[in-house]
Amino acid sequence: IYHRKPARIVREEWSKFSQFPPASTALDFAEGKEVTVRGFLSAKRVKGAKLVFADIQIDNGPVVQIRSSWREENTPQHLATKALREVRLHSPVSVTGIVEKLYRHEASDKPSQASLSTTGFPEDVSRIDLELGTIQPLNDFPPNIIVSKGVQFPPTARHLQLRFSDALRPRLLARPKIGLALRNALDKLGFTEVETPVLFKSTPEGAREFIVPTRRPGLAYALPQSPQQYKQILMASGIRGYYQFARCFRDEDLRADRQPEFTQLDLEMGFATGEDVMKAVESLVAGIPDALNAQFTLVENDDGEFYPVSKVGVRPGQPQHQWPSLSTPFVRMTYEEAMTRFGVDKPDLRIPFEIRRVDQVLPAEFVGKITGNLKTPPIVEAFRFRPDWSKADYKSIAKFIDEFMDNLPASLSQNPDGLPAPIIYYPQKPLGGLSSLGFEGAENLTSGAPGLEDFVDLESGDVLFFQVRENKPFEGGSTALGRLRTLFYNEAISRGFLPRNNNEFKFLWVTDFPMFTPDNVDDPGQGGQAGFSATHHPFTAPLTPKDADLLVTDPLRARGDHYDLVVNGVELGGGSRRIHLASMQEYVLKGILRMTNEGVTQFAHLIDALRAGCPPHAGFALGFDRLVAVFTGTESIRDVIAFPKSMKGEDLTVRSPGRITDEQLETYHLALREAKK
Amino acid sequence: IYHRKPARIVREEWSKFSQFPPASTALDFAEGKEVTVRGFLSAKRVKGAKLVFADIQIDNGPVVQIRSSWREENTPQHLATKALREVRLHSPVSVTGIVEKLYRHEASDKPSQASLSTTGFPEDVSRIDLELGTIQPLNDFPPNIIVSKGVQFPPTARHLQLRFSDALRPRLLARPKIGLALRNALDKLGFTEVETPVLFKSTPEGAREFIVPTRRPGLAYALPQSPQQYKQILMASGIRGYYQFARCFRDEDLRADRQPEFTQLDLEMGFATGEDVMKAVESLVAGIPDALNAQFTLVENDDGEFYPVSKVGVRPGQPQHQWPSLSTPFVRMTYEEAMTRFGVDKPDLRIPFEIRRVDQVLPAEFVGKITGNLKTPPIVEAFRFRPDWSKADYKSIAKFIDEFMDNLPASLSQNPDGLPAPIIYYPQKPLGGLSSLGFEGAENLTSGAPGLEDFVDLESGDVLFFQVRENKPFEGGSTALGRLRTLFYNEAISRGFLPRNNNEFKFLWVTDFPMFTPDNVDDPGQGGQAGFSATHHPFTAPLTPKDADLLVTDPLRARGDHYDLVVNGVELGGGSRRIHLASMQEYVLKGILRMTNEGVTQFAHLIDALRAGCPPHAGFALGFDRLVAVFTGTESIRDVIAFPKSMKGEDLTVRSPGRITDEQLETYHLALREAKK
Repeated sequence: IYHRKPARIVREEWSKFSQFPPASTALDFAEGKEVTVRGFLSAKRVKGAKLVFADIQIDNGPVVQIRSSWREENTPQHLATKALREVRLHSPVSVTGIVEKLYRHEASDKPSQASLSTTGFPEDVSRIDLELGTIQPLNDFPPNIIVSKGVQFPPTARHLQLRFSDALRPRLLARPKIGLALRNALDKLGFTEVETPVLFKSTPEGAREFIVPTRRPGLAYALPQSPQQYKQILMASGIRGYYQFARCFRDEDLRADRQPEFTQLDLEMGFATGEDVMKAVESLVAGIPDALNAQFTLVENDDGEFYPVSKVGVRPGQPQHQWPSLSTPFVRMTYEEAMTRFGVDKPDLRIPFEIRRVDQVLPAEFVGKITGNLKTPPIVEAFRFRPDWSKADYKSIAKFIDEFMDNLPASLSQNPDGLPAPIIYYPQKPLGGLSSLGFEGAENLTSGAPGLEDFVDLESGDVLFFQVRENKPFEGGSTALGRLRTLFYNEAISRGFLPRNNNEFKFLWVTDFPMFTPDNVDDPGQGGQAGFSATHHPFTAPLTPKDADLLVTDPLRARGDHYDLVVNGVELGGGSRRIHLASMQEYVLKGILRMTNEGVTQFAHLIDALRAGCPPHAGFALGFDRLVAVFTGTESIRDVIAFPKSMKGEDLTVRSPGRITDEQLETYHLALREAKK
Repeated sequence: IYHRKPARIVREEWSKFSQFPPASTALDFAEGKEVTVRGFLSAKRVKGAKLVFADIQIDNGPVVQIRSSWREENTPQHLATKALREVRLHSPVSVTGIVEKLYRHEASDKPSQASLSTTGFPEDVSRIDLELGTIQPLNDFPPNIIVSKGVQFPPTARHLQLRFSDALRPRLLARPKIGLALRNALDKLGFTEVETPVLFKSTPEGAREFIVPTRRPGLAYALPQSPQQYKQILMASGIRGYYQFARCFRDEDLRADRQPEFTQLDLEMGFATGEDVMKAVESLVAGIPDALNAQFTLVENDDGEFYPVSKVGVRPGQPQHQWPSLSTPFVRMTYEEAMTRFGVDKPDLRIPFEIRRVDQVLPAEFVGKITGNLKTPPIVEAFRFRPDWSKADYKSIAKFIDEFMDNLPASLSQNPDGLPAPIIYYPQKPLGGLSSLGFEGAENLTSGAPGLEDFVDLESGDVLFFQVRENKPFEGGSTALGRLRTLFYNEAISRGFLPRNNNEFKFLWVTDFPMFTPDNVDDPGQGGQAGFSATHHPFTAPLTPKDADLLVTDPLRARGDHYDLVVNGVELGGGSRRIHLASMQEYVLKGILRMTNEGVTQFAHLIDALRAGCPPHAGFALGFDRLVAVFTGTESIRDVIAFPKSMKGEDLTVRSPGRITDEQLETYHLALREAKK
């Protein structure tokens, strides 16, 4: 593929591009002084034959503007201007010139930057105007790379996307600022960072693990799905507060917003209850807006995309937002309540109106129509949706609803329990469009009876969605109507029927989850024979002594001391109080989950550690990629990961994974298996 | 193995140990107030039937001392005292009592701790005296675990070692403080933390990589030995300063102080030269003593072991040291100079006296005696060693030397070039013991001639070591005499002939390494056909334009712009300026190392990135485990890693690696290979 250049050319290029003058340091910058700066030539403005302006782009540094002009031919000024005109845009350059003007920050906006820095600029300077002396390119920028506003490069050229994307690059620059603010807060709270092994072992718990073969035949490490077991051993080791930004791994089918490797802020507190942990996590999360506001502004580009920009880099006229402060304590809600009011265990509290049970006011005929295969009388639930009137009329809403219904995901459009039924309120129609509910049904629904307050004062174009579900206790993460409601809200925003809401953050805790969930085919389970598995993991403590009693009598009714942190419909993380007694842990693994002796032995290290006088403890794991995504205005964690994997688990930039070589197979005593016929 | 307890007992234990009162928070602590604290019961002092003192141990928190006394039987005081006496030492407990006295820090010693903290104590309080109200154990501490001073637990019980070791635990608590200080300094310098993938791919560079099979037949990720290629892509992406505390992996035979996974502080600077990087690294490292001194004291236990202790936790009378400040710039030395003066490329500058060439003054007869198979006249080198006279006399030194010589490692005792020859100076003997050098030889050696100044004024018991080596340019990391000198120095310290030196830090840079090193059998090489490989990696830039010319004419003579950071004989890290031009990178891989086209294609992502106008860049990787070991007074990185792997790569605590299951093999389309007969 590559046509190697002859040695002579290689040497010439090397001597041309690799020798350059030392860059000036912070102390050298003063008006009238000659300085040397290095950066990318990011803009050129030719103002005629004799005057050129240009910008030098410098990460985490000031804006440098250079001016080059000449009067007489063949003067140094003439040659410099000519040289500047010849350097291709986006090339790395070294520029020497005289400081014409230094612009200083207002003290309040001063980013924290030391005098000796990678950029070598005085910390309070936001812009430098230079009169060009000489310019030297430090590499060629190839003419076949076309850079334009909003350009998308292929995933194989992530380096170009990272360099030239409006939003990707500033998100990557903001990410570590959030991380560092969290670390400093954790340190102040008395937490100790402990790094735990990535080369762990397979244990019968949770989703699929990657394995790492060793040179000892038949033995392998496994990559951890989380440092759960190690952190519990640390609690038994007497570490009172542990944290780690831990890389975690899951070999599972990749959904839209999952990655085979991801980063979680993992923490655990000894001598603590779930209450103690929730309080600590709230204080950590609530500190993030301040940390961001100190250095960044949330801007919005022409496409309505939000992203953070260093205060120095804001373009005039760009809409700017602050991150709102978060008030603590966060809202709390049990799993039961979240499922009832929102139909999901991670509700988006930005969505107006809630799900209401309405079968008590509906005629049997209507219910019958929207009911599928259910034998017993179902529950019917509904919610109301109100579009942004300035952007919607009846016709456009009706069209939107039709398209939405035509494109429902299979879990909704092929739901054997019944399909969702949308109704648009429109006063010009009989019964305002609600005629399918019958006169009495429509009347009762909109009467404002307790629990139905959402349905009074309907306005033209309001949409109601009805959905049946089986009358039985909640199970899993969502109901059909809960999923529909979230989907519809997001679709309405992307179609412009509601405003974007990227700098509103509605945090809440969802608590009191069932300890166990019946097994289903999709889930690998935990290897027990009980027919159900731990909802989160088998180390979660029962919520109350009553739940501990239920473990013995009716485990599926026992609630665990588990809590999920949710923001805007996204599960940011989860945690629990853990079982800290060896006797209870053994009982859960063996007596309840009915693991084999061999399975339980895989946890011997943990049980041994608990037995050694382990204090009560509780912890949490925060999805750091997702947290950064939420606070930097994107819905995809791919936008906050420098080198994300594709849906097939490929890194298209470096082209991983690669083919296993025979030598590697031999080293690890492995052979490829014949493909199944 | 485990005898599961009956459900009744499990429930009883759970209700006994899992319900306890909320802990007090910082604002609750005032003299005379009732508070609840949780911690380990770490000491009990029974002062008679009616008075007991006890300590509660709290990580990163104050010392809590409780007093329990009673006058009349069956009063609450009596019952509390009885209960305290019954709780087994080292149990986790919840204690409620009245604050008798709060001791406050002097302002200057105040550790940074917020009011809401995992410990929940006021930040300026160093000790709390409580009058016991009630005490509740939170778990059993088993009677069969014997805790005594200096106790060593088996590696399977790392949790006990972490809990009870004098030195291990404080080193683990100090480690993140060093990490956080470095992070904050990097942030101030304008560096951006970027996390790069752990699921990378195999490339023909450096030592062995672990592979991670995927569910796509025949494809695997590889775990990175360092993020080298990703960080160079980041430079092409325009990130100006990158850093990361990166977990790195090497599947190699584990030497004493190597781990299959380790942490390196990885950094890279765009638009930078090696000089810029060395300056930044110096400022980072030089900041560590201040960060440590702010929170810790280096103490010495009875065994002469050094370790850091939080200022709150220093026991009276324990010898205390400060970390000395490090002056910058660090000493610099070329590879050639280090090998000449010290016989190693990572010299320990704490060792007195240097290696001197002495063959010019020695009689041929003596040289002949110590020369092995060498055909051409060898170089003879020698160094002087002076023991601590207060602890040594001639006899003990002579015995020490004999034992030392009897236990030389094979590389010295079976060196075909010749064996080391020690001579003890002892005035009572003929020619002071130097008679084997002959009268003239002894005279000349001790004459003080230029280059031989070390050998004048010899004192009784001084030791001289002589060693020949082949007369040819240096290659590799050390000469026989260099290794011997380091070994002898450390052995002398461990025998008490020299004082320990654990809080002296002699930093230096070693620079100007040869770019390429001839291949040898032990090294996996880089897959090229040239017969030599890149000394560090094939991305290192030539040092000067002259070296770039040598690439074409005589590559083995070309020096690379590589620099190693060395302290006290330990290589802390290394870095280099990189090749930033695609043409030069292709030339090195293909034209010089003579890799196959397939091999070069493995680097296509990197070459593409360089071709896209990549700026000049240089970087560094600092072995963080080793850095922490050096600053916390230990020579082994195992002492600063929570869960280190054994020499066989096992984690004996969790018992990893584990056996690969058939299901896993099937998932990854693999089979075990039959063992070779």
